[in-house]
Amino acid sequence: MPDPRFFSRSGPFALRTLAERLGARIVLGASSDPAAIDRLILDVAPLDRAGPDEITFLDNPKYKAALAATKAGAAIVRPSHADAASPATVLLLCEDPYRAYALCARLFYPMIAATTGISPASHIHPDAAIAPGAQIAPGAVIERGARIGRDVRVDANAVIGAHVVIGEGCWIGACASLSHCLIGDRVMIYPGARIGQDGFGFAMSAAGHLRVPQLGRVIIEDDVEVGANAAIDRGSGPDTVIGRGAMIDNLVQIGHNVIIGPGCVIVAQVGLSGSVVLGRGVVLAGQVGVAGHLRIGDGARIAAQSGVMRDVGAGEEVFGTPAQPKRQYFQQIAMLARWMKARHGQGDDERGK
Amino acid sequence: MPDPRFFSRSGPFALRTLAERLGARIVLGASSDPAAIDRLILDVAPLDRAGPDEITFLDNPKYKAALAATKAGAAIVRPSHADAASPATVLLLCEDPYRAYALCARLFYPMIAATTGISPASHIHPDAAIAPGAQIAPGAVIERGARIGRDVRVDANAVIGAHVVIGEGCWIGACASLSHCLIGDRVMIYPGARIGQDGFGFAMSAAGHLRVPQLGRVIIEDDVEVGANAAIDRGSGPDTVIGRGAMIDNLVQIGHNVIIGPGCVIVAQVGLSGSVVLGRGVVLAGQVGVAGHLRIGDGARIAAQSGVMRDVGAGEEVFGTPAQPKRQYFQQIAMLARWMKARHGQGDDERGK
Amino acid sequence: MPDPRFFSRSGPFALRTLAERLGARIVLGASSDPAAIDRLILDVAPLDRAGPDEITFLDNPKYKAALAATKAGAAIVRPSHADAASPATVLLLCEDPYRAYALCARLFYPMIAATTGISPASHIHPDAAIAPGAQIAPGAVIERGARIGRDVRVDANAVIGAHVVIGEGCWIGACASLSHCLIGDRVMIYPGARIGQDGFGFAMSAAGHLRVPQLGRVIIEDDVEVGANAAIDRGSGPDTVIGRGAMIDNLVQIGHNVIIGPGCVIVAQVGLSGSVVLGRGVVLAGQVGVAGHLRIGDGARIAAQSGVMRDVGAGEEVFGTPAQPKRQYFQQIAMLARWMKARHGQGDDERGK
Repeated sequence: MPDPRFFSRSGPFALRTLAERLGARIVLGASSDPAAIDRLILDVAPLDRAGPDEITFLDNPKYKAALAATKAGAAIVRPSHADAASPATVLLLCEDPYRAYALCARLFYPMIAATTGISPASHIHPDAAIAPGAQIAPGAVIERGARIGRDVRVDANAVIGAHVVIGEGCWIGACASLSHCLIGDRVMIYPGARIGQDGFGFAMSAAGHLRVPQLGRVIIEDDVEVGANAAIDRGSGPDTVIGRGAMIDNLVQIGHNVIIGPGCVIVAQVGLSGSVVLGRGVVLAGQVGVAGHLRIGDGARIAAQSGVMRDVGAGEEVFGTPAQPKRQYFQQIAMLARWMKARHGQGDDERGK
Repeated sequence: MPDPRFFSRSGPFALRTLAERLGARIVLGASSDPAAIDRLILDVAPLDRAGPDEITFLDNPKYKAALAATKAGAAIVRPSHADAASPATVLLLCEDPYRAYALCARLFYPMIAATTGISPASHIHPDAAIAPGAQIAPGAVIERGARIGRDVRVDANAVIGAHVVIGEGCWIGACASLSHCLIGDRVMIYPGARIGQDGFGFAMSAAGHLRVPQLGRVIIEDDVEVGANAAIDRGSGPDTVIGRGAMIDNLVQIGHNVIIGPGCVIVAQVGLSGSVVLGRGVVLAGQVGVAGHLRIGDGARIAAQSGVMRDVGAGEEVFGTPAQPKRQYFQQIAMLARWMKARHGQGDDERGK
Repeated sequence: MPDPRFFSRSGPFALRTLAERLGARIVLGASSDPAAIDRLILDVAPLDRAGPDEITFLDNPKYKAALAATKAGAAIVRPSHADAASPATVLLLCEDPYRAYALCARLFYPMIAATTGISPASHIHPDAAIAPGAQIAPGAVIERGARIGRDVRVDANAVIGAHVVIGEGCWIGACASLSHCLIGDRVMIYPGARIGQDGFGFAMSAAGHLRVPQLGRVIIEDDVEVGANAAIDRGSGPDTVIGRGAMIDNLVQIGHNVIIGPGCVIVAQVGLSGSVVLGRGVVLAGQVGVAGHLRIGDGARIAAQSGVMRDVGAGEEVFGTPAQPKRQYFQQIAMLARWMKARHGQGDDERGK
């Protein structure tokens, strides 16, 4: 059970209610009581630790044995895995059990916990507009002209700059700072993220580099997440745009004028240079770097630590620095390993250790 | 036009005034009214969007056609590009149009916007010294003995540690923290930057690593920029020094005792280990790493993601991990690609995609 | 001498006292006054700058000549280096002079400087528990139910989230934020570090990624350091655990469910994906990345910028992306260089520069 000091649980929920909310079909096991459909479920838990008042799930088939042995009162599974369950377990059948589990866990543990409204120790400019239901923690600063939407939570010591607009149901983590940006609904900005500062734009010269005013904004669409201590610079004239539902992990760097398509997944410590354009659903693994002005097509996947120095087509998978087709990169590595072995002999691997 | 919620424009300026400030020569087009020299210019804008009250510029020759077509009242161009302009456009001729544009944009959009002086919601130690013209935002903390120069702006929730000295005309972004450092004039510290904390110095031992007090400082010379969420550790005994006019991007790591020469450009997510010394005008592209105690000569250029494991001479260009001369690195990549092709055949590139 | 504005020195200490505290044996030089054993030492200093009232040390034998020439009143050295010293220098003999120097420097410059107790400008929830001796700076926020141990120092604008527990003698740097975590004794959290936020966990889908509540915590054991602007995500259900005495540098990313063994050293900008397990005393050099769910054995060493894509055995040294045995990696690089030379000739190195 999650540490109750840190997580306050909602519920309980009847199994029937959960099934409705998840869009799942209930199947009673051969030995389950028909009244089980109205059983109250108290919590979520993993297969091997769930008890009769808890609901669990099976996504990865390699845990089928754990499904058979689980003591959970109910389990969310794919129809094709139903026969692996114990007859004592009530099943909630659906095609994407992990997603259904996520929905279920969010019912028990809402993403944005309630605090205590607007703290008198926050600093809210009289010209800022705060919608009903907003929660503003101690030390948070809301500057002149900022507009905070309904049910937004701004955590301690966060800073919302002048005229920033934040939609509904957003969470702004502790010590984050936002300026020159427009934020959609249900956006989550993690602690320490920096959004809207000047991009890295200056006229270089031996006499001294001269900063060029950066006159664009950052536009963050609905349902985006921006990780802890990530940095997103505002545009230089055009805007920097983060498309709907993009997931951005911790310590990511996004340069000015970057356009990120909807549903992209950008893992920790990635760096995108200025004016990069990502299509829809692009996945960049950890520590990838992309050079300026490149385009990465829809659904492309860039392996960890790759350095992308040319455009990447839709659906392409690339790896390495400079990044090349992933299969080719692995072939090259294998070829080098064979040559090394031919030259230095078999004992090498052992000595190398 | 930049979003007026976020950018407050100065001006207008007569074209004659702008030319004087930029050190440019005014050339009236064949069809322009001689009175145009006194025309009031309201804003800067790109070639394709500027109107008759706006000034634009051409730097990259590939946009010459856009210069011919621009509706801008005036354009900053090199003398050699003057003939590409429409006869209706007034030209401001100079040798470095991008730099002149930067100066011009800074007239319309001053780098440090005025706020409202010293907020009563800031926390200023009675022994701190705040010069006239300084602006201190809500939640900012100025500790004992700190000295803040004339016309410095300290943004919300920034922390200026005990006895830190900040020169004139600096900007300290929201949530940044400074300690054990001396800062020159016109320095810009972006939000969330960390300056002056202990370096990563300890006596390693199986019995437990023991931290060694770090007794140096960080010295930041005039006109330096330090990006959002960057970290600069103080020296271990000697100082860490950032030379005049160096530009440091977001999320850069600078270890203790590093010396950075004047005018260096350090792109996002670079990491410099302890005691690295950079000469003048060194350029480190994104995500470069440099091992401890190395020297990088004046004007050297390190390509993105390179891992530098030996000294780099003045003017050298290197790439790769370990970094080697750039041309050699590309030759090596080309050689491997040819061998792969010879071995796996032509179809490979396509299959690899 | 360290800048007295930033460093307040304790002492003086009699040489005899220092020797006792360091567990060192005092050896008077042939020409030193026997009363020197009671001489008062005022400060630590490097070999080449120390004076007669200061103590210095020699660790690296390449500075033996500096030991012979030092004007220091006393020097901490290995017994085997004793004969290199001037007869005027009092020696403190021990087997690990750098560690002894660290202890000595910590006597003169305690790690956590005293400030002025609990600032009235801090925001402490009435249900938080603050032990005696704690120092809470202006703008720091201590949320509901948090417990702050004896002699803890929380710097300006740091945020200690609800129900967080912090042990004794810890330091929480400016603008750091902690949530959902339990912190041991003598832990140092540097400015801007982010601890305890949600990990990067969501159900991916073309219809929109759905965040999964992260129901674990971060457990930080005694004597750990976490660098400036580093990020440690809480577990997804299990906890993220940082073992006793681990040293984590700036801008490091640690994903959910990671387990770090005691005494690990993790250099700046390293990224550990979710569920990675490090054994005891693992060393990860700068900018290393480790893919999810891998295990790195006790005492393994990963060279800078490596990308680890498989488990690494105890004591292994690896390098490259994908990481391979270090010796093999260097052989491969040497082989490629020979082939390049054979193909492109000797002049290449010079032209490449």
